[in-house]
Amino acid sequence: MDRPATAIPQGVRVMPPKEAARLRFAESRLLSVFERWGFREVVVPTFEYLEVFAAALPDSEKVEKFVDRQTGRLLALRPDLTSQVARMVATTLRHHPLPLRLCYAAPVFRHEMAAEGRQREFHQAGVELIGLPQPEADAEAIAMAVESCREVGLARFQIDVGQVEFLRGMLDGLPPRPDRRGEILAALRRKDALALDLLLQDLACSEGVKAGIRGLTELYGQEEVLERAEALAASERSKRALENLRRVYEVLRVYGLTDQVILDLAEHTGLEYYTGIFFQVFAEGLGAQLGGGGRYDSLLGQFGYECAATGFAFDLEQILRALEKQQALPRDTGPLFLIIDFHPDKWQALILARTLRSKGYPAARDIIVRDLEGSLTYAKTCGIRYALILGQPGQQTDSLILRDTESGKETPFAVAQFCERVMSGALAWPT
Amino acid sequence: MDRPATAIPQGVRVMPPKEAARLRFAESRLLSVFERWGFREVVVPTFEYLEVFAAALPDSEKVEKFVDRQTGRLLALRPDLTSQVARMVATTLRHHPLPLRLCYAAPVFRHEMAAEGRQREFHQAGVELIGLPQPEADAEAIAMAVESCREVGLARFQIDVGQVEFLRGMLDGLPPRPDRRGEILAALRRKDALALDLLLQDLACSEGVKAGIRGLTELYGQEEVLERAEALAASERSKRALENLRRVYEVLRVYGLTDQVILDLAEHTGLEYYTGIFFQVFAEGLGAQLGGGGRYDSLLGQFGYECAATGFAFDLEQILRALEKQQALPRDTGPLFLIIDFHPDKWQALILARTLRSKGYPAARDIIVRDLEGSLTYAKTCGIRYALILGQPGQQTDSLILRDTESGKETPFAVAQFCERVMSGALAWPT
Repeated sequence: MDRPATAIPQGVRVMPPKEAARLRFAESRLLSVFERWGFREVVVPTFEYLEVFAAALPDSEKVEKFVDRQTGRLLALRPDLTSQVARMVATTLRHHPLPLRLCYAAPVFRHEMAAEGRQREFHQAGVELIGLPQPEADAEAIAMAVESCREVGLARFQIDVGQVEFLRGMLDGLPPRPDRRGEILAALRRKDALALDLLLQDLACSEGVKAGIRGLTELYGQEEVLERAEALAASERSKRALENLRRVYEVLRVYGLTDQVILDLAEHTGLEYYTGIFFQVFAEGLGAQLGGGGRYDSLLGQFGYECAATGFAFDLEQILRALEKQQALPRDTGPLFLIIDFHPDKWQALILARTLRSKGYPAARDIIVRDLEGSLTYAKTCGIRYALILGQPGQQTDSLILRDTESGKETPFAVAQFCERVMSGALAWPT
Repeated sequence: MDRPATAIPQGVRVMPPKEAARLRFAESRLLSVFERWGFREVVVPTFEYLEVFAAALPDSEKVEKFVDRQTGRLLALRPDLTSQVARMVATTLRHHPLPLRLCYAAPVFRHEMAAEGRQREFHQAGVELIGLPQPEADAEAIAMAVESCREVGLARFQIDVGQVEFLRGMLDGLPPRPDRRGEILAALRRKDALALDLLLQDLACSEGVKAGIRGLTELYGQEEVLERAEALAASERSKRALENLRRVYEVLRVYGLTDQVILDLAEHTGLEYYTGIFFQVFAEGLGAQLGGGGRYDSLLGQFGYECAATGFAFDLEQILRALEKQQALPRDTGPLFLIIDFHPDKWQALILARTLRSKGYPAARDIIVRDLEGSLTYAKTCGIRYALILGQPGQQTDSLILRDTESGKETPFAVAQFCERVMSGALAWPT
């Protein structure tokens, strides 16, 4: 039984060094991709007024919220970063020339029961590309998502690309029965043709519309999907959307990325939020999606600034789970050196530490009082590769032993010589 | 007047790219120091049960808090990271061998009226060195604080070091009058000898105790303070504390850091929290402190794990304000390249972008439709150093112009030649 003072709330967690290093790894790799594509990081507050998130999360029950003691208004721990960036662009950055390429990495909060792998607090990194209605901007987002997966080391992943306007155009011919519409969407998602037939059969609409909707379940695959979709698209809305998707696909071809992309025109995640192309990222071995994004041309308008926008975000914890499943996590290591010093005065150890650190080598000092064996065991437990031993009984005063904690190999040095060779680069280790 | 949907709560703020880059700069510099000293990052939740923070912030009015809908218990947005790390060490890391060297960088929350430069949300980075009661551990913390200041580029700063046990020993002789004690501490802090005399004169205690307390106002300065303190210290408690301070000072001398350190034995910030050495970091030109820390040997015990500990944290926003005052902020720059492409097909621009990015050069594409002048103005506004121009009227199909947006200097290249030279490193730019 946990005592009250040490309990932690359900759905949040601590990350000791090994896990924290993984999170930092995923974050820094993604941010490096974003930076190379010309995106610049922004920082937004952890909480804002609840209404900022109304468009992205209409169901405020899913939000961690509390009352602002200063104003009595409801505040939300951010459930979504895109809304915050949109609000920021519509206010602080309103007069900045377009396009704006912005990115972020930050925790996100949802009030949900902790399902497998889902937390009340998790970590996202993403981008928003603002001010570009062109299909090239959507292609840029998808290409960056692919490069992000590669950069973190995922070997097997896939991007499912849909177009909500195409789907909306196909559904436009249905009579207005919202209940039935929800069931149809669910059947489409399951690609359940039989259920679709039953749902459609007594609806008062043309056979063409019904055939189109039935046909959606087949619109899943690579380039050939575009041809099949063209044969089904009857409305102007769907035709325009398909033309847009075709242009995005063309740019992805120039990028050489079509192998990673699956078109899925029956998919409708985020139907309320997105306004065009949208996509989901999946990795082999992981059921949940790693990330996703799409075009959201109407969100900024809700903050009083009509402006086209597209973007995506990854869930870092899901990326790490996928890397684990694919056995592609980076190896965990502790500091490179542990300085174990038995001299009563510590100046040699301090000079040694300063020398190593000045060259960028992580070096910890084993200040604790214990025997050599205890210190070496500590080094191994902490993943410290080398021990530097000074002042052992029988050891010369101005000497040190460099011990590889993995192989046990020991090399003696004069302390001054060792420091000189580290400074000159004659002695060097990969960091 | 802000419309409700775009308002932001008082005391929190957004950071557009320029400010976010500064924050990231300060954070990454500090984390690099921590890493070089052998510390490893941990991640703790943004909120925990309020009682976790009771020792560090007894006044829960200063905490941003809300009710956990799952349990009905009070949750707090972290007002302090040390308490969270202590709780984590006492639970998750309880069986890890000591010492533990842990560090973090994360936002912190306080419910306070926004005074000058103080926010409800601000950013800290710090370390906890756990399991070492030795004075060398305190010296390590102070040495790291000095190196942190240097690493971020502060030219003029100072570390004020106190010892709460010394001060407590000096006050032990006072009769138990809590009201008077508070006034005495306030006068000590102001180094107001006259007020002290008035407060002490009618108190029933020995002249020796009174002289000792009066003398505290003079115990401010460098090494000589240790001698003067020795003459005043009557109690065993103060003598022990002074001996501890002397040993810390000796290690700082070996580190070559005593010029940066001011001893201040009348200071008593955090009297309730700290159990020995403590310190505050100040920078020239900034009234507020940048950071601080000290020994807190009793905190882990409150989570059921008796263990010595010392540490410190910096406020990143205060570091940035100090750098601004000292005109030492790093220069803000946008991506290195903007690719401006007037060709109808985009494959040359895409190859160019891919080439530059593969060598780590940030390159954005100007997908928007406008004339060259518009694009060049955009590049300058965004702090983009070079424009790469393709497909202008009159320009050869396979050529590009590299334009320095600062000097206006233009250099023509064949696209293929440019890419080759970038790949081979014959063309290179500092990043």
